[in-house]
Amino acid sequence: MSKILEEVLAANHTYATKFGDKAHLPMPPGRHFAILTCMDARLDPAKYAGLAEGDAHVIRNAGGRATDDAIRSLVISYKLLGTCEWFIIHHTDCGMETFTNKIMNNLLSSSLKTAALEASGWRDIGPGPGSSEGKYINWLTINNQAESVIEDIQRIRYHPLVPAYIPIYGYIYDVKSGKLIQVPGATEVGKAS
Amino acid sequence: MSKILEEVLAANHTYATKFGDKAHLPMPPGRHFAILTCMDARLDPAKYAGLAEGDAHVIRNAGGRATDDAIRSLVISYKLLGTCEWFIIHHTDCGMETFTNKIMNNLLSSSLKTAALEASGWRDIGPGPGSSEGKYINWLTINNQAESVIEDIQRIRYHPLVPAYIPIYGYIYDVKSGKLIQVPGATEVGKAS
Repeated sequence: MSKILEEVLAANHTYATKFGDKAHLPMPPGRHFAILTCMDARLDPAKYAGLAEGDAHVIRNAGGRATDDAIRSLVISYKLLGTCEWFIIHHTDCGMETFTNKIMNNLLSSSLKTAALEASGWRDIGPGPGSSEGKYINWLTINNQAESVIEDIQRIRYHPLVPAYIPIYGYIYDVKSGKLIQVPGATEVGKAS
Repeated sequence: MSKILEEVLAANHTYATKFGDKAHLPMPPGRHFAILTCMDARLDPAKYAGLAEGDAHVIRNAGGRATDDAIRSLVISYKLLGTCEWFIIHHTDCGMETFTNKIMNNLLSSSLKTAALEASGWRDIGPGPGSSEGKYINWLTINNQAESVIEDIQRIRYHPLVPAYIPIYGYIYDVKSGKLIQVPGATEVGKAS
């Protein structure tokens, strides 16, 4: 068993022993909202937004982007589980700002090792051929966080399955301070009158 | 300002005042792993798996499914940010077990109100026409959690951009106990020899 797997299961054991009355939480989010944010390891939405178990849906992907999958999740979130306010939260120093589709596809074409593995030779996994499959994926890189938040709110706002009465708040999480910074103009995007 | 927005910003203010040395966390996950899990409000992966800020990537969508978007995120996670172990964690009592594509599309065709709003008349948002756009979305509902975990591991395992050396662990989180339960056979799916 890997060290990480052992640690995760040990942490889970500790969590479960103090689980208490969380066993009785209902399925629909108690505070009726959802957050779409980045997968970045430095972000803990429960901590930075004050969520307890049972409070809110949390959707996360690389960048916190309004992908088809995020929209699938948000539509399920409101239609079946009653959320009626949404937050789109990108963050400073995001990995998505550090590359382009072309860079990513070139890296993957040359090897499927991680960049770190390539540099360190940490594990002998052979030369590992690359793959040109990257070109079938839009990596959804980000040039400017404020613009990407507004773009993503816009995409969600105008989706035919998203009702106009749901407010969508746009914020950037600052990884240096832990603060949520409002994106100017974001919450006004396509707002229902 | 909505009550929820006020509460989130107040919680964030408290979090930021005690941010401490988290300002210095590097971008790559310190513990080199990623978790793909469901957006369900009852799940807090940081708590159930023992994550501190900076430890691991967390990807979440409705069901914790291995969508194209989840795979986009996982590939970025290993290739650019060095994760080398992945967890796929679905859970008991998942909303995705409660409907079918047909049911969802019928609901959306009749109205874009939430089911709860329809029942309670909580806010007068007018009759709100439905939309037939649902039929362009595969909602990725779940019949059986153990099967969906194995299916999703399989989809990731055989993706041409996923290297064979990354172990993928399959678990089901039990919302009644907080425990992670191993899915029999899941970690063996397509495992590199």
